Amino acid sequence: MKIGFIGTGVMGRGIINNLLQANYAVVVFNRTKAHAQSVLDNGATWADSPKEIAEAADLVITMVGYPKDVEEQYYGDNGLFAGSHAGQIFVDMTTSTPTLAEQLAVDGEKFDVKVLDAPVSGGDVGAKNGTLTIMAGGDEAAYDSLQPIFNMISKAANRFGVAGRGQHTKMANQIMIAATMLGMSEMMVYAKAADLDVAKVMATLSAGGAQNWSLDNYGPRVLAGDFEPGFYAKHLLKDLRIALDEAAKMNLSLPATDLAEALYTKLAEQKGLGDEGTQALVKLWAQFA
Amino acid sequence: MKIGFIGTGVMGRGIINNLLQANYAVVVFNRTKAHAQSVLDNGATWADSPKEIAEAADLVITMVGYPKDVEEQYYGDNGLFAGSHAGQIFVDMTTSTPTLAEQLAVDGEKFDVKVLDAPVSGGDVGAKNGTLTIMAGGDEAAYDSLQPIFNMISKAANRFGVAGRGQHTKMANQIMIAATMLGMSEMMVYAKAADLDVAKVMATLSAGGAQNWSLDNYGPRVLAGDFEPGFYAKHLLKDLRIALDEAAKMNLSLPATDLAEALYTKLAEQKGLGDEGTQALVKLWAQFA
Repeated sequence: MKIGFIGTGVMGRGIINNLLQANYAVVVFNRTKAHAQSVLDNGATWADSPKEIAEAADLVITMVGYPKDVEEQYYGDNGLFAGSHAGQIFVDMTTSTPTLAEQLAVDGEKFDVKVLDAPVSGGDVGAKNGTLTIMAGGDEAAYDSLQPIFNMISKAANRFGVAGRGQHTKMANQIMIAATMLGMSEMMVYAKAADLDVAKVMATLSAGGAQNWSLDNYGPRVLAGDFEPGFYAKHLLKDLRIALDEAAKMNLSLPATDLAEALYTKLAEQKGLGDEGTQALVKLWAQFA
Repeated sequence: MKIGFIGTGVMGRGIINNLLQANYAVVVFNRTKAHAQSVLDNGATWADSPKEIAEAADLVITMVGYPKDVEEQYYGDNGLFAGSHAGQIFVDMTTSTPTLAEQLAVDGEKFDVKVLDAPVSGGDVGAKNGTLTIMAGGDEAAYDSLQPIFNMISKAANRFGVAGRGQHTKMANQIMIAATMLGMSEMMVYAKAADLDVAKVMATLSAGGAQNWSLDNYGPRVLAGDFEPGFYAKHLLKDLRIALDEAAKMNLSLPATDLAEALYTKLAEQKGLGDEGTQALVKLWAQFA
């Protein structure tokens, strides 16, 4: 089986390398070819457009930046659909809008192509180590046929229903994470202002009802002054805006998510720190500025 | 050693029973005597006022409801200080204000009494099983002398510095918990509105970066329609108000904690659900009302 892969960012490269190691033939496309060089060196081949990828591959995976980038890969004269053939499967692993995921699935049907949404969590480390969590939506038989490949690149893959449901699940994940990042930031700011030993406070909190993954993993980085991105602040901001758009369509008010969007906007767009990790949120307070 | 204990609510009863089982003599007082009956049946003795408790005991522990209740036990003609003797130790385990904790320690010095603040986390189950977490502040030698007793009723006791620092640590804990409860609520509301299998979403989230203790412990209760208090919504609201008062004194803006206070106010004081557990927050949305 030949796999097409569009998007050779840090996530894409990790996944592609795992596919190459499992002896799949992988043909890749990326807007900036230089960013594909390391996977080409590892044995992937190059195609000059999404259309050529679709013509060459049985399965195509896309993992790009923003929903508009996803649209650019699928539509148009040089897009995936233009090069598609009946029975093919496309999988969008970008964290994108449930609405676009639904639209891609509907448009795919016109070409007898199944388009699944399958965003992931687990970050660059998960991509590299094949320990991602995959949250999928779309045609069940197509999903089932991809299990061997999902098993190669993830520790857990689950299908949540029809197209769009994978993206909705990812949005639920981001809503939960954003609130824990807010809480962690305010907790650390309060503890520091009250002149407590913040590391000791975090160790105590982690042993009880306040425990959470962000505190355990990002808390120590903040104290060490490490704001390198495990996950970019600007990407969480993008995700929160998608979640809030979708929530608005469902007439849902999500005030904590609204607040997280406002604070990450301040961090990324007013302070210009969108390329730091999500833990940089604490920099909005003088205690960690 | 004879231990005085004021406050025979669900937390106090659990701690008292563990002290009795360890063969300490325990003398108790409670505003409503009927609520002390079960520990009296287990071997505790009764005193008619805080003053009598102080006269009879070497060490006195207080665990009551609100800061004003704490003041009522320590001050006045029938209060603990009125019956105190030099060298005695008082420990307030109520979650109360850092400011009051500092004041009690200062006033205690006039009687040559050390007053420690030692709020706990772990809830009624932790009190019953002796697995509380104790967050203490106050005189170091007095704290050290109580280690054998703290070991009897907790799985972890830590001192965070001078008087008030135990309460500040507990506030940090509540700030973190409040945000995770907000995030969990919005996540579940979003997932339900998007017609996802919420239990399956929670299981997936718990395996990754969105994992947290509240999600693991309260999420399943919400789905089961179980809003019994592990921790009363009205008590979290009290704690958040203390945290915000203290934050204001430190010129700190904590917008997520502000939001949590507003939502728990709505739940407890407008909807009248303060006697339900903190997980009842989801009832503010139509999806779980």
